[in-house]
Amino acid sequence: MSTAAGRAAAPAPGHVTTGPIRGSHKVYTSPAGHPDIRVPFRDITLDPSAKEEPLRVYDTSGPYTDPDADIDVRKGLPKTRAAWLAKRNLDAATPRAIRPEDNGNAEGAFLVAPCPAPHTVLTGRAGEPVTQYEFARAGIITEEMIYVAHRENLGRQQAAEGAAQRMADGESFGAAIPEFVTPEFVRQEIARGRAIIPANINHPELEPVIIGRNFLVKVNANIGNSAVTSSAADEVEKLVWSIRWGADTVMDLSTGRNIHNIRDWILRNSPTPIGTVPLYQALEKVGGDVSKLNWDIFRDTLIEQAEQGVDYFTIHAGVRLQHVPLTANRVTGIVSRGGSIMASWCLNGHRESFLYEHFEEICDIMRAYDVSFSLGDGLRPGSIADANDAAQFAELETLGELTKIAWAKGCQVMIEGPGHVPMHKIRENMDKQLRDCDEAPFYTLGPLTTDIAPGYDHITSAIGAAMIGWFGTSMLCYVTPKEHLGLPDRNDVKTGVITYRIAAHAADLAKGHPAARLRDDALSRARFSFRWEDQFNLSLDPDTACAYHDETMPREAHKSAHFCSMCGPKFCSMRISQDLREDARRIAGMEEKSEEFRQSGGQVYVPVA
Amino acid sequence: MSTAAGRAAAPAPGHVTTGPIRGSHKVYTSPAGHPDIRVPFRDITLDPSAKEEPLRVYDTSGPYTDPDADIDVRKGLPKTRAAWLAKRNLDAATPRAIRPEDNGNAEGAFLVAPCPAPHTVLTGRAGEPVTQYEFARAGIITEEMIYVAHRENLGRQQAAEGAAQRMADGESFGAAIPEFVTPEFVRQEIARGRAIIPANINHPELEPVIIGRNFLVKVNANIGNSAVTSSAADEVEKLVWSIRWGADTVMDLSTGRNIHNIRDWILRNSPTPIGTVPLYQALEKVGGDVSKLNWDIFRDTLIEQAEQGVDYFTIHAGVRLQHVPLTANRVTGIVSRGGSIMASWCLNGHRESFLYEHFEEICDIMRAYDVSFSLGDGLRPGSIADANDAAQFAELETLGELTKIAWAKGCQVMIEGPGHVPMHKIRENMDKQLRDCDEAPFYTLGPLTTDIAPGYDHITSAIGAAMIGWFGTSMLCYVTPKEHLGLPDRNDVKTGVITYRIAAHAADLAKGHPAARLRDDALSRARFSFRWEDQFNLSLDPDTACAYHDETMPREAHKSAHFCSMCGPKFCSMRISQDLREDARRIAGMEEKSEEFRQSGGQVYVPVA
Repeated sequence: MSTAAGRAAAPAPGHVTTGPIRGSHKVYTSPAGHPDIRVPFRDITLDPSAKEEPLRVYDTSGPYTDPDADIDVRKGLPKTRAAWLAKRNLDAATPRAIRPEDNGNAEGAFLVAPCPAPHTVLTGRAGEPVTQYEFARAGIITEEMIYVAHRENLGRQQAAEGAAQRMADGESFGAAIPEFVTPEFVRQEIARGRAIIPANINHPELEPVIIGRNFLVKVNANIGNSAVTSSAADEVEKLVWSIRWGADTVMDLSTGRNIHNIRDWILRNSPTPIGTVPLYQALEKVGGDVSKLNWDIFRDTLIEQAEQGVDYFTIHAGVRLQHVPLTANRVTGIVSRGGSIMASWCLNGHRESFLYEHFEEICDIMRAYDVSFSLGDGLRPGSIADANDAAQFAELETLGELTKIAWAKGCQVMIEGPGHVPMHKIRENMDKQLRDCDEAPFYTLGPLTTDIAPGYDHITSAIGAAMIGWFGTSMLCYVTPKEHLGLPDRNDVKTGVITYRIAAHAADLAKGHPAARLRDDALSRARFSFRWEDQFNLSLDPDTACAYHDETMPREAHKSAHFCSMCGPKFCSMRISQDLREDARRIAGMEEKSEEFRQSGGQVYVPVA
Repeated sequence: MSTAAGRAAAPAPGHVTTGPIRGSHKVYTSPAGHPDIRVPFRDITLDPSAKEEPLRVYDTSGPYTDPDADIDVRKGLPKTRAAWLAKRNLDAATPRAIRPEDNGNAEGAFLVAPCPAPHTVLTGRAGEPVTQYEFARAGIITEEMIYVAHRENLGRQQAAEGAAQRMADGESFGAAIPEFVTPEFVRQEIARGRAIIPANINHPELEPVIIGRNFLVKVNANIGNSAVTSSAADEVEKLVWSIRWGADTVMDLSTGRNIHNIRDWILRNSPTPIGTVPLYQALEKVGGDVSKLNWDIFRDTLIEQAEQGVDYFTIHAGVRLQHVPLTANRVTGIVSRGGSIMASWCLNGHRESFLYEHFEEICDIMRAYDVSFSLGDGLRPGSIADANDAAQFAELETLGELTKIAWAKGCQVMIEGPGHVPMHKIRENMDKQLRDCDEAPFYTLGPLTTDIAPGYDHITSAIGAAMIGWFGTSMLCYVTPKEHLGLPDRNDVKTGVITYRIAAHAADLAKGHPAARLRDDALSRARFSFRWEDQFNLSLDPDTACAYHDETMPREAHKSAHFCSMCGPKFCSMRISQDLREDARRIAGMEEKSEEFRQSGGQVYVPVA
């Protein structure tokens, strides 16, 4: 456990992991006609014997894996969006002054130094488009839309070979995944409310991401300290580490001290969208006394965080007074931090939620910066027994009502979801959410498909997450092995991210995404050919794959061995398969010839043509 | 890596893990009227504040977790079935003599000493029931059937409270899971071919297990050495370790030397059914030269292993010559060891499989000992690209044909299944298998739902395994983190078993098993009440759950803390929930009173009754 001084140590360059992922190198390409828009990918180069082009994969890791990038967390990342934002009708604002309570009144050795990276604050104007939703509905294609289209296509200029076949082979339950993503398609999806690009105008360092049912399934990782443990330097490294392994967005769920300054370090150094739950900081400002929460403090916290550049806020406006009694007979009550705080506030004063009552004002604030809503599932089920109960669905219906209000105000919206749900009850969640929330993107936590395995909840929830992603959920919030037990460390973060990349990819495959299977096929070809290095490098975690192999076969010569220690040289089915493949082909060729013979009349001698 | 002498070291008592699982103690109870039949369970006693009875759970760990058992692997386990078998019409047989090739011609320091535990060999007679299937179809209820009924009921004397409700709430896709399992129900299921009790008459140490769609989903763990690594002592400990954590059956897939003697140690010390693939040992006997395999060597190997007491054999009789060309254009060819061996044998001589041609004789041998068939999926897909292809389904159809032949011969049968299958193609596998194989139990390897994560294939496959278990698969063969990379060690075995217990339990829950949810509910109540020790002890892996918690909150006082390091004391939703539960109940009570008021006429003053 770290000391106070340790916790308050400011992050420094050496604190974050840099360097390429094993076997990958960073590339940037631009969509046709837009040389100023540079979109990152990773290329995995294969052994020459494969005679295959490098496999290009989606890359969330940011400049940290770019050997040409000059990483200094005190300077922050390049402000790639600044030029785009400069062309829009936005006003420079005088930022709100920081107050001691913003950092939990930490001082001296306990106060984390602010991030020195430069930052200007912009706000939007009334009557002019600010949010991606407003631009989309005005028929305008933004640079962010062009960027994400190119990103979703993995930089292709047209549909991948075999795309139509793969799509016809899938089962997407009525989704409308395109063979090739155009900026116009992106605009339509956003205008329809079916997708969002969380992109605060004050987060110019962002590499934009699209979240929606008709795009690749996304993964969120959670970081953030608590009163009990973790330091500022740790949190910045967790950010960098989580995106290295594949997190598409990151939520900073800090609840300890130094919330404001830690968030600064995170935002100025994050290429991915950052989400928060402003209610946590508001509660810290009133010393943890729920009864002292009020709209003014909350409003001020929204502005504070929006000015810093937070891309989406979880707002638990669906926890209404009338819903709280519905949880009275639950096995695990209210398991959402924000949900339990709001429920407590409502009951204490026997009054309606201030988030619900001031919802339109919240919309006005968020719209001015293009902060997206993540409408919180404060009443999600925290146990199998509570799944799909009246409390959960009452809140979901309220979120549907609030979605329409937010859209009318020009805000982007996604909807949070459960939780703990046994497999047979998962589909109902997806169907109800699509109906009640008019197809706004769904963003679930798992769900966990059983309660009985703390220590393994990344697995209990990967099962539910893969399924609900297949059914149409747009983003999956990860769960680590530490769920229910404690704050995750760096190893837990990596395990959670890889596990959720598995769930997301399994969903993309099942939906018939036009290009998802290319990676599975490339890896399987490498496996069949005993190109061990290629197999490792194509996998989600090359370091672990190689290390596991090397536990029993560590020598360099082993990397071209036609077996591993599972079966040994005599029993390796892949080796035997390789040997007989030529025989099998010869026989298949013979059978084709036999068939041809029969079909042309079965005559041994035929006239010369 | 171990030396030759290390690999040949005979197991000794100190080599195996004994002692109770944290928080559990062993109990034995008998079904009413059968005091001679003692069935093991584990009881998890809860904190007195819970005011709950101990939770009884299914227990696969054998006498190793019984503090009263005297464990000496040189003596073997008690022969609990001997008294039952003595009452049947079975003949003592002169065992086949062991030959040097049975142990791969190992000698001197390289030869594992045989297990000294006593063992007599029995065979069945023609015209008298031997197999559980024959007894069932003769209308006879065996001790094994009584035992497994009691075991599936967790020792209850009638249906659990709330069973009907839980069953109505589930979705079993047409399964017929009973509220309470009777021996007669077991007999019917076995007679119908829909369930099996793998129980070689030469495995008297067995604690019987039932495998079938209308019973709890079961898990298999694989152990066994390869030519490259692992020792006899390691394999016996892997057996004990795998059943400790929840494996219902164990397959010994050894392919190195000392196959016969290692198997002896395993069988005499295994309370769980043991499966093998006799083809491996047959191939070892011909020095690894596939072309030298023949029926006589295989037949002799079947008898050798049946006499030792192997409970089920994987027989790849579905890999027919005509099927092999169907694999010619696969991405990963034939990934089954046995399948690739048989395909190679067929092609080499351009002849039909000797397993297929001699299938009825195989049935006659297996019937004489009640060795169950596990009809092998030699042509299962080893990559997403190959899923549900012609080769795979052609073999499945052949297995259906062979199932009927085996039943006609009185043999018990289960069917092996895939493999690598994306989520949207899983259901088709289940439906086709039910049709083609007349509802014989399905026993799948995963399936893995994507190829891209070697190092994490326990997770890629847990997703598919949970789903196919839900759809009706009876047993799930585990996958460890080492899949595709090397032989699993002890830690991998545990991870694989726990992961697959999760998948099996998630399936039981979704199917609406009458009692599965009791454990989830008990654990969630413990979680909500901050009974940390109870939460750990009720979980699948109490050691890991406690260790993870203690990483950040190690002190004894922390075990009664109303928070953990995830959120800290102020933000713990469970704590806040606890506080407001009384408030919520009060309000719910008030609302009930209001409703009562309205319904009785809305009059404030009412006549005295």
